[in-house]
Amino acid sequence: MHDSDSIGIVTPQHLHFDSPLQLDSGAILDSYELVYETYGELNAARSNAVLICHALSGNHHVAGVYADNPKNAGWWNNMIGPGKPIDTNRFFVIGINNIGGCHGSTGPATINTKTNKPFGADFPMVTTIDWAETYVRLAQRLNIDQFAAVVGGSLGGMSAMQLSLDAPEKVRHAVVIAAAAKLTAQNIAFNDVARQAIITDPDYHGGDYYAQQTIPRRGLRLARMLGHITYLSDDSMAEKFGRELRSGSLGYNFDVEFQIESYLRYQGDKFAEQFDANTYLLMTKVLDYFDPARDYNNDLSAAFHGVKANFLVLSFSSDWRFSPERSRSIVKALLDNNLNVSYAEIASRHGHDSFLMKDDHYHQLVRSYMNNITT
Amino acid sequence: MHDSDSIGIVTPQHLHFDSPLQLDSGAILDSYELVYETYGELNAARSNAVLICHALSGNHHVAGVYADNPKNAGWWNNMIGPGKPIDTNRFFVIGINNIGGCHGSTGPATINTKTNKPFGADFPMVTTIDWAETYVRLAQRLNIDQFAAVVGGSLGGMSAMQLSLDAPEKVRHAVVIAAAAKLTAQNIAFNDVARQAIITDPDYHGGDYYAQQTIPRRGLRLARMLGHITYLSDDSMAEKFGRELRSGSLGYNFDVEFQIESYLRYQGDKFAEQFDANTYLLMTKVLDYFDPARDYNNDLSAAFHGVKANFLVLSFSSDWRFSPERSRSIVKALLDNNLNVSYAEIASRHGHDSFLMKDDHYHQLVRSYMNNITT
Repeated sequence: MHDSDSIGIVTPQHLHFDSPLQLDSGAILDSYELVYETYGELNAARSNAVLICHALSGNHHVAGVYADNPKNAGWWNNMIGPGKPIDTNRFFVIGINNIGGCHGSTGPATINTKTNKPFGADFPMVTTIDWAETYVRLAQRLNIDQFAAVVGGSLGGMSAMQLSLDAPEKVRHAVVIAAAAKLTAQNIAFNDVARQAIITDPDYHGGDYYAQQTIPRRGLRLARMLGHITYLSDDSMAEKFGRELRSGSLGYNFDVEFQIESYLRYQGDKFAEQFDANTYLLMTKVLDYFDPARDYNNDLSAAFHGVKANFLVLSFSSDWRFSPERSRSIVKALLDNNLNVSYAEIASRHGHDSFLMKDDHYHQLVRSYMNNITT
Repeated sequence: MHDSDSIGIVTPQHLHFDSPLQLDSGAILDSYELVYETYGELNAARSNAVLICHALSGNHHVAGVYADNPKNAGWWNNMIGPGKPIDTNRFFVIGINNIGGCHGSTGPATINTKTNKPFGADFPMVTTIDWAETYVRLAQRLNIDQFAAVVGGSLGGMSAMQLSLDAPEKVRHAVVIAAAAKLTAQNIAFNDVARQAIITDPDYHGGDYYAQQTIPRRGLRLARMLGHITYLSDDSMAEKFGRELRSGSLGYNFDVEFQIESYLRYQGDKFAEQFDANTYLLMTKVLDYFDPARDYNNDLSAAFHGVKANFLVLSFSSDWRFSPERSRSIVKALLDNNLNVSYAEIASRHGHDSFLMKDDHYHQLVRSYMNNITT
């Protein structure tokens, strides 16, 4: 990654939390560890911290590169850095890996000190409510009273919303991108097919595959292939792959024939080697469970009562996973509470994945919004 | 099925074809058997035959019931019968099971007389072009010079189009419902995930699972769950299932929590016990391969040159698998060839599955069109 406005080399940090975490599910996590990265400098008033919440398969490595792996730039490196839309010359940016994750924070692959074995299937179900509590505790440990902004796309946007709901005093601005106030039946259906692919893989072993020296590779691969379809738009797939054949002619067999098959299988194979299946299962459940209006008779406006943050809400025209309509329902509920909301629907052909891509209009909107935040 | 205008009891028939079938793939099927059903009477002029082409998981049992199973009505029983839109008082209706199928026509589970074992993975890949040839041969055997109409939805609509292309003299009318002139990259992607689910199931055994006394149940179940999502509209899923919980409260585990999960898993389980996985694989490839414009520089109008049939093309507003836009591109190509085309986009909330459902507007359109066909 040769990038003149990159943050450069970054180093993950770890924090251990000893107070038990009472989870939304009723279970208790006795202690846990968070891995995180920071970019830029915390100012003297400690008022310029921006928390980045990751999506389903993301993590704390949001920007910059590691000294020993200079090609592995963070997943939002195009958005965050000196002079970038989220400008590390002004902001102290924090990327964290959520608990339940598989990149260093406590999760299913972590050794459970009670058993000296990985948690596996014993790792408790988590929700955005639990994550919001870990964000609050992280802020306390870093001596940050309030985040200047909490920013996320997709599940990360939901996590940002959740923190603004659960800890209104901690969030000055929330940037919610390509998200929804809850999943639809169709969203849940796709998640369940992905989960069933993993759970019915004979190598899943009820979640305790670590001890078997195996991983449910087949299931995780299918889950990722399927997920990928929902991240792209029909149009972007058509543009990028169309009906192009890999070898130029039909093979009349089940090997790769169309380029789209080659792409999806490659993405699935790669992911299956890198990501923990139990974490994938958990993350899809976090998505399914997110529904702040549930306890308010499905009245999202009532759910947002008490929120204090200012909001930037962004959606993408070709996102059929979380369509602009879903963002507008968030905007309406925020406006019903007389909150300050900026909203834009960005014309994009790249589907849900647009939130990760460099697009001038999109980046300019984030830049303008962030520039107007006083620190 | 208590249905006063049902055809009543029907009986499948078999025909054996001894002339080798040269397949589109280059392979040769030495002989094959077709299973079919007929409803109504062939008139003296033998001019009132209507061929019904089935979709991915359909078969020859299109209407009526079997004496030993009076509840198992044919898959299009609401459309075909005395006084119904395709009126068996006027038409001699033929339902067939395509070769490659798993309901009686020669397919992967058929015993290969050369080996005395099921074909399994040795069954050759088939295409709509091969099926069209079998339709022509069937007509010859039944002494039918020309079908009054060839009718189908989804893959069945593609099969009807193919026959109108390959044997223009054999098709007086083609009724093409909820179809497309070719799959998009996204359509192919969904098919490939389904295929990979089956092929990577350890019980698939390279397609020769019959000898292992097992079936790739897990893979077929996933394929069907996924397929089902694409048959329904987002709205119809939301209406039918929403975010309703099965037990009324969250369980925080991977069992069924939402009603949509229960529905999909049930559909998947049921299908996996009834349908042959090798046939499923073949049928998805038939879909992928269908692309009459391929040999005409992607010019569908050029591909349709020489077609003689009159057409009724129907699409459904909420069908995102084969959207109305896809049907309109068929209509345009037909009009470019000065063919008679009637087209309607039917307002429906039921997605792709609408073509199987009873809807007044839809059925009235088919009825009017069919009534105007002289026999």
